[in-house]
Amino acid sequence: MIYDLIKNGILKKTFLLRAGLLVMILMPLVFHAQPVSEKGPRLILSAGIAGAIDRDTEGNRLLDRSFRYAERKADEALRHAIEVPVPADPGGGYTHEKHKKNYADMYNAALVFAITGKPAHAEFVKKMLLRYAEVYPGLPLHPARKENHPAGKLFWQGLNEAVWLFYTIQAYDLVKTEIGRKDRETIENELFRKMAHFISVESYETFNKIHNHGTWAVAAVGMTGYVLGDRDMTERAIKGSDKDGKTGFLKQLDELFSPDGYYSEGPYYQRYAILPFMVFAEAIEENQPALEIFEYRDRLLHKAVVTLLQLTNSNNEFYPINDAIKDKTYFSEELVFATNIAYERYEDQSLLPVIRQTGRVSLSNAGYATALAAAGSKGTSYERSSRLISDGPSGKQGGIALLRMPDASGTLLDALFKFASQGMGHGHFDRLGLLLYDGPQEVLGDYGAARFLNVEAKDGGRYLKENKTYAKQSIAHNTLIADETSHYGGKVKQGSGSAPELLFCDLGEDIHMVSAREGRAYKDIELSRTVAMLATPEAPEHPFVIDIFRARSDTPHQYDLNFQYSGQLMDTSFEYTRDSVLAPLGTANGYQHLFKTAYGKPGAGRAVFTWLRDKRFYSITTLTDSSTELFFTQAGAGDPDFNLRPEKGYLVRQRDKRDHVFVSIIEPHGNFDPQLETVQHPGSGVEMLEVTYRDDKYLAVTFRFRNQQAHTLVICRDKVTGTPEHRVTIGSKTIRWKGAYTITQ
Amino acid sequence: MIYDLIKNGILKKTFLLRAGLLVMILMPLVFHAQPVSEKGPRLILSAGIAGAIDRDTEGNRLLDRSFRYAERKADEALRHAIEVPVPADPGGGYTHEKHKKNYADMYNAALVFAITGKPAHAEFVKKMLLRYAEVYPGLPLHPARKENHPAGKLFWQGLNEAVWLFYTIQAYDLVKTEIGRKDRETIENELFRKMAHFISVESYETFNKIHNHGTWAVAAVGMTGYVLGDRDMTERAIKGSDKDGKTGFLKQLDELFSPDGYYSEGPYYQRYAILPFMVFAEAIEENQPALEIFEYRDRLLHKAVVTLLQLTNSNNEFYPINDAIKDKTYFSEELVFATNIAYERYEDQSLLPVIRQTGRVSLSNAGYATALAAAGSKGTSYERSSRLISDGPSGKQGGIALLRMPDASGTLLDALFKFASQGMGHGHFDRLGLLLYDGPQEVLGDYGAARFLNVEAKDGGRYLKENKTYAKQSIAHNTLIADETSHYGGKVKQGSGSAPELLFCDLGEDIHMVSAREGRAYKDIELSRTVAMLATPEAPEHPFVIDIFRARSDTPHQYDLNFQYSGQLMDTSFEYTRDSVLAPLGTANGYQHLFKTAYGKPGAGRAVFTWLRDKRFYSITTLTDSSTELFFTQAGAGDPDFNLRPEKGYLVRQRDKRDHVFVSIIEPHGNFDPQLETVQHPGSGVEMLEVTYRDDKYLAVTFRFRNQQAHTLVICRDKVTGTPEHRVTIGSKTIRWKGAYTITQ
Repeated sequence: MIYDLIKNGILKKTFLLRAGLLVMILMPLVFHAQPVSEKGPRLILSAGIAGAIDRDTEGNRLLDRSFRYAERKADEALRHAIEVPVPADPGGGYTHEKHKKNYADMYNAALVFAITGKPAHAEFVKKMLLRYAEVYPGLPLHPARKENHPAGKLFWQGLNEAVWLFYTIQAYDLVKTEIGRKDRETIENELFRKMAHFISVESYETFNKIHNHGTWAVAAVGMTGYVLGDRDMTERAIKGSDKDGKTGFLKQLDELFSPDGYYSEGPYYQRYAILPFMVFAEAIEENQPALEIFEYRDRLLHKAVVTLLQLTNSNNEFYPINDAIKDKTYFSEELVFATNIAYERYEDQSLLPVIRQTGRVSLSNAGYATALAAAGSKGTSYERSSRLISDGPSGKQGGIALLRMPDASGTLLDALFKFASQGMGHGHFDRLGLLLYDGPQEVLGDYGAARFLNVEAKDGGRYLKENKTYAKQSIAHNTLIADETSHYGGKVKQGSGSAPELLFCDLGEDIHMVSAREGRAYKDIELSRTVAMLATPEAPEHPFVIDIFRARSDTPHQYDLNFQYSGQLMDTSFEYTRDSVLAPLGTANGYQHLFKTAYGKPGAGRAVFTWLRDKRFYSITTLTDSSTELFFTQAGAGDPDFNLRPEKGYLVRQRDKRDHVFVSIIEPHGNFDPQLETVQHPGSGVEMLEVTYRDDKYLAVTFRFRNQQAHTLVICRDKVTGTPEHRVTIGSKTIRWKGAYTITQ
Repeated sequence: MIYDLIKNGILKKTFLLRAGLLVMILMPLVFHAQPVSEKGPRLILSAGIAGAIDRDTEGNRLLDRSFRYAERKADEALRHAIEVPVPADPGGGYTHEKHKKNYADMYNAALVFAITGKPAHAEFVKKMLLRYAEVYPGLPLHPARKENHPAGKLFWQGLNEAVWLFYTIQAYDLVKTEIGRKDRETIENELFRKMAHFISVESYETFNKIHNHGTWAVAAVGMTGYVLGDRDMTERAIKGSDKDGKTGFLKQLDELFSPDGYYSEGPYYQRYAILPFMVFAEAIEENQPALEIFEYRDRLLHKAVVTLLQLTNSNNEFYPINDAIKDKTYFSEELVFATNIAYERYEDQSLLPVIRQTGRVSLSNAGYATALAAAGSKGTSYERSSRLISDGPSGKQGGIALLRMPDASGTLLDALFKFASQGMGHGHFDRLGLLLYDGPQEVLGDYGAARFLNVEAKDGGRYLKENKTYAKQSIAHNTLIADETSHYGGKVKQGSGSAPELLFCDLGEDIHMVSAREGRAYKDIELSRTVAMLATPEAPEHPFVIDIFRARSDTPHQYDLNFQYSGQLMDTSFEYTRDSVLAPLGTANGYQHLFKTAYGKPGAGRAVFTWLRDKRFYSITTLTDSSTELFFTQAGAGDPDFNLRPEKGYLVRQRDKRDHVFVSIIEPHGNFDPQLETVQHPGSGVEMLEVTYRDDKYLAVTFRFRNQQAHTLVICRDKVTGTPEHRVTIGSKTIRWKGAYTITQ
């Protein structure tokens, strides 16, 4: 609260909110004909808070670390001559990296100036801006641009250009009062207006796209509008080029997020997009508070940040669904800004552990408020909980379920069930896919993207061709593949046409259970999957997963249920054979990239597959019939440049089936202690697993773990809303219940 | 010091040492005809110290944690009925694990009794011992014993029987005063004497073996002798069955360790053997101080512990040379006892960080002294330094060199150059092998043993057949293999006949350099390798390795220089081809277990091979000629049970060569930051690498890193002692120096 007074002088934020309508009417008067750039900072760090940061740095560890970091980077930059090279290289190349470094240097130097008032730092920014102002107007489109990809001038792609402006306009905002009028005019007219024009007018299509590239563009241009006092720019940024609200920032907020704050491209890109969303929102709130942007869509931006944080495993890594780099955690730069602004605006105490873990804040009004709050808080453990996250602008395009249960040691068994929409161009064909973690450890993994970001030797750090031929294909995921073809034929356009349907979801205390159906991934096949996480009353501290995957068609098909695991095979309940040479499993749709490493035909009953990873054992127990075939695989076939990681898979195949239900129990068990040299429970605990009832409407699975009772899970196989009454007779026993399922002894 | 007073009453340790000779003469009088078992504890925890631990537990975190652990384990054991099953199962099976658990339970219960005086804990031990005394005399050899492997009665192998006695006699030592005379006689006569007889007489061969199995046997029987007051037993333990010193504990100390304290089987087994060595020595010191066992062989036991600790990487894991399980750290149980006793006896402050890191102590006189000392000390970082460790009883059978240099961040570049002797039955055929770590991270690894310890599904947890067919073979190591056959034909007997010869070693400040020769690994080939770790003056914080490996013969051979790396291939300077199927690289000697994953023929010049592992890049730059062939490999061929981890290799092959020198630079470089999405120096820095001079006596390698001067390393290729003068003319420049090598600009 104290910093609001500093920032707004006599005006309190609460007053501004109440006075919203009035301000909106008066707004035209706010924009002067004279450049507003003569005034102090207008974006996310005010002069008052900059001074407060300077004062409070020593007493606050978060502020101190954050400021020292910017100072070190800035001082380092000031020691070198300014260089603005002629754009030549693609991503990862020298000029690309240099222009990226230049905006980071300017931003850090501007922060140091704003906080400490050191004139050399402002001078550095001014000089570099003047240099850019000299060069920029004469630049053609970048020589390394790609066909069918929006080009930039400083960079091979327009996206980087918008990011450059996003940071640089913030830097300018902080130092502009130190620059003489003539130089300001040069910088504003030759650089910022020309660049904003390039991004918003010459690159009209990207600017009006409902996509993260569009968000970077409107955020950069919109903030430039505030700093330059150019209302036309900000209006186009907020409402789209035609100012009709059909594109632009608000429309992006409407369409790219679900009501639960899920971003349609998935967490990896949500992590990237959250930065311009939150920072531009913060700039809007500072300049046009009447828009009440943080209240927009029932406080959508709050949900967006919380949902994003929840979409991480116990290792704080974003779940690598869709195109994603796997090491990315919520400590990334973008989240520093986003969590700070979310805390400042929503005062959500649950965010503070993340901020304390991160160990630094953004040097901004939000960062200052957050640092003060975090200093008075305790704990660095972020609480993750089970939840259902809807997808689609109206929340009707499927979603993602997070199922989480702690074991005896407090480690979460942590499943992600994906029945979300396609997620645009970066989406993978993984309908009804499953990811499973045992605490920080991947049990059933997603390959993520085939890409070595910014490693020039790996195709310039771009997405590799194997991203399309393998990583996006259904076989690279823990889902069902029919006839060795990917969902929707591996075509984004087809995949974007429909989304899976949630059948039911119950995140109760004893059992978390979600069921979803995908009817259009294949022309004449309906897929449905039910994922249950539970523990038996006899062993409440040993959660496991029951996985029921059904494929149904009027014509016979080959159904492959795939599990991607990492670790070393320990044991199987069945015989298998290995060939002396490794040949590819198939010829297309990703199958050409898998070596078949072994083959088994277990016969009717249960097939148990057990592996060891980092001191824990895991088993998949799957029901088999006389025709079931099992394949062990390893990625890396048809991969001339060693672009693929050699990950392992276990595939359950049923040929010539119309209606088939795959029933599996997936369980962590036991451990290996290399110091004590002890091994506990290296074998699966499942002693019985059977389908004990099945008709068109119901399915019952009975299972028993060692030294325990038998339990029966009965599910309704259709969409269930409310609590309808059911009655199923299994053998001599009649089971009655209300709702979607029941579990009985 | 204070605890010495408690333990020895009026006698001070220093006095005892000075009075050593006198005590030795009087010793016969010390052994009474009456059983000494009526007296208090005689082994490693005295009554006085037990009381002191009870008093000081609350004030000392190490004591507290250690005592609480034993108490929890003991209390848990006391809650269950005593069960002494009829021996039936092999390692990992129920009766095996139960008998192991029984000795651990008795030991913990006895400790709790000794420290707290709780009668129930002593009663538990007594009851279990009586039960064993009932069963033991009637036991035949174990039904699951193996041919050609010494059998036990409680366990499938005699080794476990000795370990059982080792712990159980300590437990009895602590509770015996609580047991009535009749029960004591039963326990001593029916159990301990019979078991000691089985171990020392019936298993005469093992008892008299110079091997860790022998050490466990003599330690167990020797301590039993002290507790039962049976001088014959202790004499046989210390001097061998014939009491002539040709076998037994002292002989083991003489023959199994080098003067530097290196144990011939390597660190993994040294870790195991150190426990009976140190604990029995402690018992000897308590009962026969005149033997001055801790002074023996110039304080050998001190060197043994320090050398063992130094044989760990930055992750505290023992280097996995020879048969070794890779996760084993110095936090293992055995090291708790060993480091405590070493600290108590030698007061070596450098051990305290290890003890603080371990976070617990043994509940013993040594543990008590150590806990008090550690509480007053600071730091948990154990200092590792470069060192030469000799092998062989007289230090003349080669050795191991540890080369360590910190980089800018303090991370150690850490190489192990192995030119040690065979190391008996657990030795690998890896003469002149190299291991390289970058801090905790493996750069060039050793496969370790093919074994999943105690995992019953993996051949009962024993060494797998692939241990012999792959893991022990030369191709599983970073060394040179001639004609696709292993060193010494893969035969232990042949390998045990000779050891490599150290040519020179210089662990200077700017460069660490070691050269060794192996003349008998192949009938008519002489191998020599020089490993240098250095940094250039221009980049003193970027250490790297120069590796010069020469093979020389009068007849032509195929020479394969193998590098086992882990990570993902990023880039090569040469073209390579991949087959569409993966076939084995060879047919025997481990080659049958490697898939050939790619093949290249780089032509004359330099071949650069670059990979990424966990955010760091690594390159091997190797000189090639027009006939050089390069193979990429992956383990796992001919492996029907998936017993092998799919590790990767890079192999440089020269065919039809008589005399060939492989020259390589191995360097860590750059990094990948997934949070900032930045990549630095993803390519090798080596811009030039050439052999600029070569004759029979000298070899000069000239190299240059990017933006640096060229440097030339000239080495003398023969054995160098002292500082002979050399003079080599390279081009127009004459280089003079003293010693084994020089490096010039």
